Amino acid sequence: MYRPMIERGIPLFSGIRTFMHLPYVQDLEHVDYAVIGVPFDTGVSYAVGTRFGPSSIREMSQRLRPISQAQGIDTTEYVSGIDYGDLKIVPGYIDLSYEAIEEQLKPIFAKGIIPILLGGDHSISYPHVKAAASAYGPVSLVHFDSHTDTGKSMDERRKHSHGTMFRYAAEEGYIDASTSIQMGMRGTPFTLTGLDDSRELGYEVLTTDDVKKLSIPELCNKIKQRVGNNPVFLTFDIDFLDPVFAPGTGTPEVGGFNTYEAQQMLRGLTGLNIIGFDLVEVLPDRDLTRVTALNAANIAFEFITLIALNRREQALKAAEKADATIIG
Amino acid sequence: MYRPMIERGIPLFSGIRTFMHLPYVQDLEHVDYAVIGVPFDTGVSYAVGTRFGPSSIREMSQRLRPISQAQGIDTTEYVSGIDYGDLKIVPGYIDLSYEAIEEQLKPIFAKGIIPILLGGDHSISYPHVKAAASAYGPVSLVHFDSHTDTGKSMDERRKHSHGTMFRYAAEEGYIDASTSIQMGMRGTPFTLTGLDDSRELGYEVLTTDDVKKLSIPELCNKIKQRVGNNPVFLTFDIDFLDPVFAPGTGTPEVGGFNTYEAQQMLRGLTGLNIIGFDLVEVLPDRDLTRVTALNAANIAFEFITLIALNRREQALKAAEKADATIIG
Amino acid sequence: MYRPMIERGIPLFSGIRTFMHLPYVQDLEHVDYAVIGVPFDTGVSYAVGTRFGPSSIREMSQRLRPISQAQGIDTTEYVSGIDYGDLKIVPGYIDLSYEAIEEQLKPIFAKGIIPILLGGDHSISYPHVKAAASAYGPVSLVHFDSHTDTGKSMDERRKHSHGTMFRYAAEEGYIDASTSIQMGMRGTPFTLTGLDDSRELGYEVLTTDDVKKLSIPELCNKIKQRVGNNPVFLTFDIDFLDPVFAPGTGTPEVGGFNTYEAQQMLRGLTGLNIIGFDLVEVLPDRDLTRVTALNAANIAFEFITLIALNRREQALKAAEKADATIIG
Amino acid sequence: MYRPMIERGIPLFSGIRTFMHLPYVQDLEHVDYAVIGVPFDTGVSYAVGTRFGPSSIREMSQRLRPISQAQGIDTTEYVSGIDYGDLKIVPGYIDLSYEAIEEQLKPIFAKGIIPILLGGDHSISYPHVKAAASAYGPVSLVHFDSHTDTGKSMDERRKHSHGTMFRYAAEEGYIDASTSIQMGMRGTPFTLTGLDDSRELGYEVLTTDDVKKLSIPELCNKIKQRVGNNPVFLTFDIDFLDPVFAPGTGTPEVGGFNTYEAQQMLRGLTGLNIIGFDLVEVLPDRDLTRVTALNAANIAFEFITLIALNRREQALKAAEKADATIIG
Amino acid sequence: MYRPMIERGIPLFSGIRTFMHLPYVQDLEHVDYAVIGVPFDTGVSYAVGTRFGPSSIREMSQRLRPISQAQGIDTTEYVSGIDYGDLKIVPGYIDLSYEAIEEQLKPIFAKGIIPILLGGDHSISYPHVKAAASAYGPVSLVHFDSHTDTGKSMDERRKHSHGTMFRYAAEEGYIDASTSIQMGMRGTPFTLTGLDDSRELGYEVLTTDDVKKLSIPELCNKIKQRVGNNPVFLTFDIDFLDPVFAPGTGTPEVGGFNTYEAQQMLRGLTGLNIIGFDLVEVLPDRDLTRVTALNAANIAFEFITLIALNRREQALKAAEKADATIIG
Amino acid sequence: MYRPMIERGIPLFSGIRTFMHLPYVQDLEHVDYAVIGVPFDTGVSYAVGTRFGPSSIREMSQRLRPISQAQGIDTTEYVSGIDYGDLKIVPGYIDLSYEAIEEQLKPIFAKGIIPILLGGDHSISYPHVKAAASAYGPVSLVHFDSHTDTGKSMDERRKHSHGTMFRYAAEEGYIDASTSIQMGMRGTPFTLTGLDDSRELGYEVLTTDDVKKLSIPELCNKIKQRVGNNPVFLTFDIDFLDPVFAPGTGTPEVGGFNTYEAQQMLRGLTGLNIIGFDLVEVLPDRDLTRVTALNAANIAFEFITLIALNRREQALKAAEKADATIIG
Repeated sequence: MYRPMIERGIPLFSGIRTFMHLPYVQDLEHVDYAVIGVPFDTGVSYAVGTRFGPSSIREMSQRLRPISQAQGIDTTEYVSGIDYGDLKIVPGYIDLSYEAIEEQLKPIFAKGIIPILLGGDHSISYPHVKAAASAYGPVSLVHFDSHTDTGKSMDERRKHSHGTMFRYAAEEGYIDASTSIQMGMRGTPFTLTGLDDSRELGYEVLTTDDVKKLSIPELCNKIKQRVGNNPVFLTFDIDFLDPVFAPGTGTPEVGGFNTYEAQQMLRGLTGLNIIGFDLVEVLPDRDLTRVTALNAANIAFEFITLIALNRREQALKAAEKADATIIG
Repeated sequence: MYRPMIERGIPLFSGIRTFMHLPYVQDLEHVDYAVIGVPFDTGVSYAVGTRFGPSSIREMSQRLRPISQAQGIDTTEYVSGIDYGDLKIVPGYIDLSYEAIEEQLKPIFAKGIIPILLGGDHSISYPHVKAAASAYGPVSLVHFDSHTDTGKSMDERRKHSHGTMFRYAAEEGYIDASTSIQMGMRGTPFTLTGLDDSRELGYEVLTTDDVKKLSIPELCNKIKQRVGNNPVFLTFDIDFLDPVFAPGTGTPEVGGFNTYEAQQMLRGLTGLNIIGFDLVEVLPDRDLTRVTALNAANIAFEFITLIALNRREQALKAAEKADATIIG
Repeated sequence: MYRPMIERGIPLFSGIRTFMHLPYVQDLEHVDYAVIGVPFDTGVSYAVGTRFGPSSIREMSQRLRPISQAQGIDTTEYVSGIDYGDLKIVPGYIDLSYEAIEEQLKPIFAKGIIPILLGGDHSISYPHVKAAASAYGPVSLVHFDSHTDTGKSMDERRKHSHGTMFRYAAEEGYIDASTSIQMGMRGTPFTLTGLDDSRELGYEVLTTDDVKKLSIPELCNKIKQRVGNNPVFLTFDIDFLDPVFAPGTGTPEVGGFNTYEAQQMLRGLTGLNIIGFDLVEVLPDRDLTRVTALNAANIAFEFITLIALNRREQALKAAEKADATIIG
Repeated sequence: MYRPMIERGIPLFSGIRTFMHLPYVQDLEHVDYAVIGVPFDTGVSYAVGTRFGPSSIREMSQRLRPISQAQGIDTTEYVSGIDYGDLKIVPGYIDLSYEAIEEQLKPIFAKGIIPILLGGDHSISYPHVKAAASAYGPVSLVHFDSHTDTGKSMDERRKHSHGTMFRYAAEEGYIDASTSIQMGMRGTPFTLTGLDDSRELGYEVLTTDDVKKLSIPELCNKIKQRVGNNPVFLTFDIDFLDPVFAPGTGTPEVGGFNTYEAQQMLRGLTGLNIIGFDLVEVLPDRDLTRVTALNAANIAFEFITLIALNRREQALKAAEKADATIIG
Repeated sequence: MYRPMIERGIPLFSGIRTFMHLPYVQDLEHVDYAVIGVPFDTGVSYAVGTRFGPSSIREMSQRLRPISQAQGIDTTEYVSGIDYGDLKIVPGYIDLSYEAIEEQLKPIFAKGIIPILLGGDHSISYPHVKAAASAYGPVSLVHFDSHTDTGKSMDERRKHSHGTMFRYAAEEGYIDASTSIQMGMRGTPFTLTGLDDSRELGYEVLTTDDVKKLSIPELCNKIKQRVGNNPVFLTFDIDFLDPVFAPGTGTPEVGGFNTYEAQQMLRGLTGLNIIGFDLVEVLPDRDLTRVTALNAANIAFEFITLIALNRREQALKAAEKADATIIG
Repeated sequence: MYRPMIERGIPLFSGIRTFMHLPYVQDLEHVDYAVIGVPFDTGVSYAVGTRFGPSSIREMSQRLRPISQAQGIDTTEYVSGIDYGDLKIVPGYIDLSYEAIEEQLKPIFAKGIIPILLGGDHSISYPHVKAAASAYGPVSLVHFDSHTDTGKSMDERRKHSHGTMFRYAAEEGYIDASTSIQMGMRGTPFTLTGLDDSRELGYEVLTTDDVKKLSIPELCNKIKQRVGNNPVFLTFDIDFLDPVFAPGTGTPEVGGFNTYEAQQMLRGLTGLNIIGFDLVEVLPDRDLTRVTALNAANIAFEFITLIALNRREQALKAAEKADATIIG
């Protein structure tokens, strides 16, 4: 069982930068979740540089300890986690990178390990979700973002970008849009009917205004009802947050959410069968105070907490069942 | 009819920096609104450098498309807009600059074009409102700011600054204070009676605390009732926002509003007869993350949306009337 | 009576940087409060550099005038204040610095002057509270922070740090934990039982979630009931604020409070018998926009306002009593 | 004849940002040189974001006036120049962008206009030089850089990048390596024989150490002898400068040249038959002080000066010849 | 006798920020030199914000001790110095500020104190030199800068700026141009004949190229020969340095000098009869690393060293003379 | 044999951040040199934060490949190197940290491995040199710095700091000052006799002025003659460089060296018997452009190159000797 390499008395600012001081290994046998960097950013449409996202998030994760005060759990009691390092990608070549990412992720999903991808631009969700579907079949998308990313490309030669992957993933059957939900959309769109395009694909879409009208428990219930017991792919684009909370991103949209709201939303998603996570679009060169990476690290920590809570729940149920059997 | 020079497939990060890719022209014949830079900052009392505000706001407006998802309108269907470039000013000389600004704006107002001024320091509102009054008579001020800017100068030789213009504009009859409203005041004043001075001039003044006690629809109603059908001059000092949302400004006051609140306030002001806008006090040298300019660009976009919504409303009414006439 | 050295017509950006233009003197005879820098940061556990906190807070306090619009008071009518300069400390040597700080503060407390310490790291509260207790006996702690700072050191040779002082100050009798309260705790702790340790010492502890569930008046009442008429030591760690509002600090915890909330909480604490304040953990080298120092300066100003309001209240009561005597 | 739109008395900080206030037009009839942005950065191997290079260089070119004190020439007397705006490129797709760039440049070369390309990453030199060769045949390369950019790609599917273009341009006959020269190479290479690869292609290669051993006049003579009367393509990678003089670039190599040295080298290249320039690898997101863009703007200005000096020389010769004819 | 308030064992990072820890007093009786801030920047033509120059230079002077290793002198043995604070100026009003500056400086010159002005923009040299001339008659200018600042204003109403003061000061007889020298000129001028204008006024002008051709001792000799025994006014515009060494300035010109060269030039100017110094154009908002202010503080320290060396020399001569008398 | 984990085709920006992609292992059996972080900064006297130096230098070392073009060597052919991670230290406690550092380094020296320490503040040289002396006896110091660091502490309780270690290391016999040399001293000292104190300890001391008067080969010869065949401890304080080349440091001194000069000096030190290196005082929070860390990484690379050159030389000699034996 792998756990963060921190000892009392050793300062958290020391050591090689892995995510939350997790051991840097590629062993897939004794692992529940793997934090994996994907330093790819050729899919972006505006500001670029998320290839340094994984490194910056790791740097800003050093003060995290594997215990959630808010959720009341020491994650190391329930899950074994590693920092897998970065996937190999081909900068400047989207299609080659997609192939490479998918191939590297498939064995991880095949082992039942839950990957937590640190982007990189959002286009990495396309090979990510393909790899997920190879293990689980079509997945339900739970998508925090200010954009739907269901655009249609102009011609076949330039099909893929970070604005189109949830169209193609749905059209090609890796995502079951009818049990999926997109939240936080805002900004100035290409066309007035932008959100309808997404809805036509089957997604439920909540704008920022829609989300702000709900309490956070109401939002979490809505998500839970939408996805049911399906395998869930949770993707969090850091531009879901307001640009003040996430200045380091390439396509910021003003008027977004603060970090506390995001934490509360994620903390409310206990019990979902989430089989893969990604956290994308952290652009360190525009993150002068590194608050974007700090928020990203904390959001990834909520992912880990959700995994641990699920395992504790399963353990409790198994124990109850065992008790029942014994008693029975 | 002028509209942003953007094509599908051409990246928004390319091209000469005009506001929202609007054409850079000085033609005043076929224009509804004109975005105009006023790179003047000799009127400031503390940190200085807003002369680079127009350039920075233009830079950060590049990702704006002329369509408002929140308001449900494609502005290009209703209004023709241009980037007029910058007004000529005389750095270091307030009075000379005031003369120049007023003279350059008068023909624009005379054509019925709605100027959207990008400051520059707030003192530019003085010649702006003078030029407005030359076309419309005394106007109603709708003023978002953390300061009232109705200070009294110490002696005649140094009358003008960015802290006095709404005193003199009211006293000299360019603003009708009795139908005007100032919102968002906070911070540590010169005198305990600072706000009363403004009220004695006739302004309605709402402190930040006052505003926070109202819902946004309540605030918008209060504004609408105050100004009625008068011609309205809307001025937005970026320091209305909290310094975290607008670090790039010269006289920040902590404890302010966030961008979402500002957007909602502006979106609620449909139907006002606004004949001029300005957006001032963006100071790029203190805006390291450029979030101030990004917010400013988005606020200016709300101005454009309000203009377009008014024109759509007028078109609908005209159509109804025409229908009625025909039917009649 | 000492008051800020500002004159109408002299720009606030000019002059030697004392806090709020207060006179820089060490006279303790005619003084109600003294702003004092403590450029000490050897006690920190993560990012370091708060030794430059006092200088940066002073720089960002220049636009403060001594009048509170929100509380309706001109503080100079009721209190005499100075900038005392910085305490002498020994960088790199915690114990030597503690001795020095305590010795320098004792005469100030002995004169009944209320110190407002500008840190420096939070460990300075230890000698600060010791000096306070030398004059007042055990004090009640009102503590705004994201951490309880009641950790236990690993061995005697390294007992003190900015994470342990409120344990030892309570254990050693300088703080009466049973009438003290800690607010705003969040983040990932060393152990799941971290907060219980603090409660076992006797403190009341409210997490960020706890605080967010209360209205601000409810919170203020809770504090007032907790401390009663005891002498109060109010300490404000700038990391109580969200990292977006206080990027310049060494152990930021995401999901915190904004400045307006902090201002309202402090403004609600009128009537407490506060005998000492500190404001700590401002780290200028991570405060690129200087918003942390700006917020800190404004928070320190709320401290001054609280002192002035108390003195006004006392003066009113004394006047009433005098009137009653005369009438009687 | 086009010249910068600056008037005495109008501050240089005002106006829409074109290069050196040149008029923004696409007219190719009355033009000697055209400054053209190429916001393309998909070819980079390390830090990315040069798509914002053209905009940043334009911003930092505003204080340039079209007169060279050092060379003693008012360029507007001899050449007509424009800011052509940006070329259309396809972010994320190298091959599609190459096609587009080449097609857009060919008509410009066909008109005999000298393009001054502002990158963008260095890979844009490939379509640039192809377009040049379409008008002039194989050109001589004068190449200032810390890298030779003559790498060999690993496989055919990923042939192009900013590290390979001067291999393929030479191999494919667009550059005549035997009359070309590369200067400034330093840093840690892929292989010990890196420079030999370039020499095997026919290039003359001078390392930074080699250049430092020459006086600047000696260097300029060497260049002139190497290229003779051939049409010359001059390319300047900003990483030729030391990272302190060009922090805003993606693959900085320490131990480089300062700006004065670069200016002197360029000023010494009078008389070469330069038919195209590019200035590449300015990465604004890593250029916090914008000194990289400032240096780049000044280097581009030296290009313009060289063009003007050539035209003056030609005019003088023509005049002399005319005189001779008359006298004769 | 006033000397820096530093004690062994008290860290240099503590204390109120005066220049080099000099005492903050206005006593003019026991003083040889006075460091004086002039937070004025209304005279600038491009980037603005030098009003914060004095504060930033003071901050960055904290590590200076009053001993020059390079010159072999402990200045406190020979001169008494103070930080006088800032002069009162009127932001936004050049003429009013000039009057105020001149009036405040006259008594200082009258006492024979040597002022070291920390700007502020360079236009403050105009009232500075007027005040100097009131005590000494026309002075010789020794001027380090990249601009001559001898421009002619366009009309009488806007006569003064930071580009014209050395024209008017010469024309009006405060400077004796025939014994004055300007060094370091470079950049792109208004007109080809820019430098000739300065020469026509009588100045000797050395461009950057001219200076680079001389050794530093040769340059110093040239200066000494030019000014002879006249009272000298030495003015140092920080943009004499290359923008890499002085990014924080408003009109940077690339290709300048480094700090070591500047130090050596100043160290070579022993023996001149310098009666006033200023150091101008430090713009903190563009000085992210604060290296400009650090360099400025060190340059101001060279000024102090020159004063002390003169006094030592005078003392030695007086002693020799006394000895001679005695012996005689 | 350990070598950097880089493969052709895998981008250098990917992967966990070890120095130059060296493997992160603690194996001491098959290792020639070990890069080791020492995140300790309690010894500093001014700006603090070098605890993040190792992490930042590692980040900026990612583009280094293990081949020196300048020295003509592929280091991986001759030496096996690792990134050992960081030493355990005790922040806030100098003496405890010294003990810990020394104990951790002794086994490394005992194995004959050459450590390359990345600081941390310069005080780490004290335990470093003690550990070195435990294996080699008194060592010769080759010291690049702007300070001698031979100060005397004021009292026994605060003996150690980053300004005193080369006094105590010499006095206590770990350094043989009579064969040691210090280079680059400049700035304003505590006392006029500061350098003499160092000379009295036996050191040869060259000021910056002294160094600038020598050619680099002359300097290198001087060093070689001074140290002879002794075991050499080479320490490089990044403030040897000018603050423009190393803004990210705590006690910068203007007027220093550029990176190219430093590279040339180090490249000239072939053949010395260097048994330990450290590179200290990189302070990332003041290194906004990260050029300090970039320069530091490149300087550390020169250290590695020197080790490899020595091993190649030894191998050649061994081979010659073997040949001679055979022939003999």
